[in-house]
Amino acid sequence: MNPCKSETSLRYPSRLGKCVPPSVRLDPVVWGAATPGPLDRQQVDQFDRDGFLVVEGWIPFDEVVEWRREAERMRADPRQELVYEKGSQLVRTIFKVDRNTSYFARIARDGRLLGLAEQLLGGPVYVHQSRINFKSALKGGDFWWHSDFEIWHTEDGMPAMRALSVSVLLDASTQLNGPMLFIPGSHRTFVPCTGSTPDMNYKQELQTQDYTAPDNEPLADLIRSRGIVPATGEPGTLVVSDCNTMHGSAANMSPWPRSILFYCYNSIHNTLPERPPLGTPPRPDFLAHRDYAPLSIEDGDR
Amino acid sequence: MNPCKSETSLRYPSRLGKCVPPSVRLDPVVWGAATPGPLDRQQVDQFDRDGFLVVEGWIPFDEVVEWRREAERMRADPRQELVYEKGSQLVRTIFKVDRNTSYFARIARDGRLLGLAEQLLGGPVYVHQSRINFKSALKGGDFWWHSDFEIWHTEDGMPAMRALSVSVLLDASTQLNGPMLFIPGSHRTFVPCTGSTPDMNYKQELQTQDYTAPDNEPLADLIRSRGIVPATGEPGTLVVSDCNTMHGSAANMSPWPRSILFYCYNSIHNTLPERPPLGTPPRPDFLAHRDYAPLSIEDGDR
Repeated sequence: MNPCKSETSLRYPSRLGKCVPPSVRLDPVVWGAATPGPLDRQQVDQFDRDGFLVVEGWIPFDEVVEWRREAERMRADPRQELVYEKGSQLVRTIFKVDRNTSYFARIARDGRLLGLAEQLLGGPVYVHQSRINFKSALKGGDFWWHSDFEIWHTEDGMPAMRALSVSVLLDASTQLNGPMLFIPGSHRTFVPCTGSTPDMNYKQELQTQDYTAPDNEPLADLIRSRGIVPATGEPGTLVVSDCNTMHGSAANMSPWPRSILFYCYNSIHNTLPERPPLGTPPRPDFLAHRDYAPLSIEDGDR
Repeated sequence: MNPCKSETSLRYPSRLGKCVPPSVRLDPVVWGAATPGPLDRQQVDQFDRDGFLVVEGWIPFDEVVEWRREAERMRADPRQELVYEKGSQLVRTIFKVDRNTSYFARIARDGRLLGLAEQLLGGPVYVHQSRINFKSALKGGDFWWHSDFEIWHTEDGMPAMRALSVSVLLDASTQLNGPMLFIPGSHRTFVPCTGSTPDMNYKQELQTQDYTAPDNEPLADLIRSRGIVPATGEPGTLVVSDCNTMHGSAANMSPWPRSILFYCYNSIHNTLPERPPLGTPPRPDFLAHRDYAPLSIEDGDR
């Protein structure tokens, strides 16, 4: 009997026990090579190869300063979906910003962001999750290495790797303030997590990562062969990452805050099943939206 | 009544409540400008200015590989003074290596290390604390910003800033594997910690730092004006730091381990009182040696 035999209906096995090997990606990275959009050919190719893309100056400085000001306002608003730093009153994340505020609902439909999601995913998309991560000065904790898709696949049942995160730096991200770190090319390997998933796991995982930690051996192999690239840049820098690109960030040991706006777009052909595949209850909608209406570009910026 | 009035006999007030301002350093940095030793004039001046000094190639590679091999052996030896990573069986630190092993007792007396401690501290020294820190691949957690002297002054009663750490990188230290981070020039300011110190504090502080976290405002001021410098280098690199230089390190998110050998030398004119000043019991001797016999250089390397 093969102890590695998969005992799940997941296309990409994970959280099943000790013996699950990494899976090769079964899905395309760029779903719409011929879909028009704001990225040029070279940028699309780079995203396809690396699993992420960093473009400085995507949003003009004046504009992104306004976005940050709005984010700061929401941070003090108890009606928002707030997650705090562990053992602290400091806001770590605001979720559901595309649904709870008209301000960030509009930006979710901005052609410069939505347009490139449609371009790379080959057609209409909706927002699976949105958030603003604040990595506070001299406080903000780390995010351990993870693939978003590993979580969305096992905890939400997202079927295929046809989703991506479009993020915009609201503060300068430097080597010193805990920038997002990517492993280039890691999006082509699905690294499983060993542990099983307790009910309500999401509550603690939003503060520190235990169950969603990928297995060390394949993670180390990926870094040894591919390296680590920090996504640094001025406010307004665009960072796009495939849903399966391995990423994380260290703590912010600097006095410079590092906030980032994220929209996780998913193809309308890749919606969630009614019940998650591993028997856990569906996660709340601020983590996994279940309104699949496709978004339309609302401005004509690009 | 001045709410900031100091209520302690400490020369550098700390852990007394909310209102303690930073202190200006009362002690010299280089105590023996005329003392001969392995550092040249320029290196001594640099240490005086920055509060730390990094010199590549101080210990030849062949030799440091032997040191690391010995450190790895000790790591698996339950007779050693071992501290583990939080919630893990992974050794984070081995203490008292200069007393518990003849191997590292000899190296503590090596002219290349002991000689420069005598040179900078102006005369005979003993080892106040020694340790090997292992920042394990894909595991090793962070050390928050701290001044060693803040701890030694409040918890051990060390009177003056007449101590320093001589460390040797046993692995390559890079931007990616959680290198030591220094704030240049921070050794001239004593940044207090606000919290009081519970008994037996040291047990948890060796895993995560709560009570020894310096106040954020003066820490942020220091970093804004002075910046952060990582101490990177190949195995065998020397890192000397004044006891009051603010330093820390982020987690190791790479598959490359980062181990460092430390000897904290203290002047024999700066020994500890019988009772710590804040009423806590004396810390165990693996954290604060109370055998003050001066060391003698045992080899003739320099």
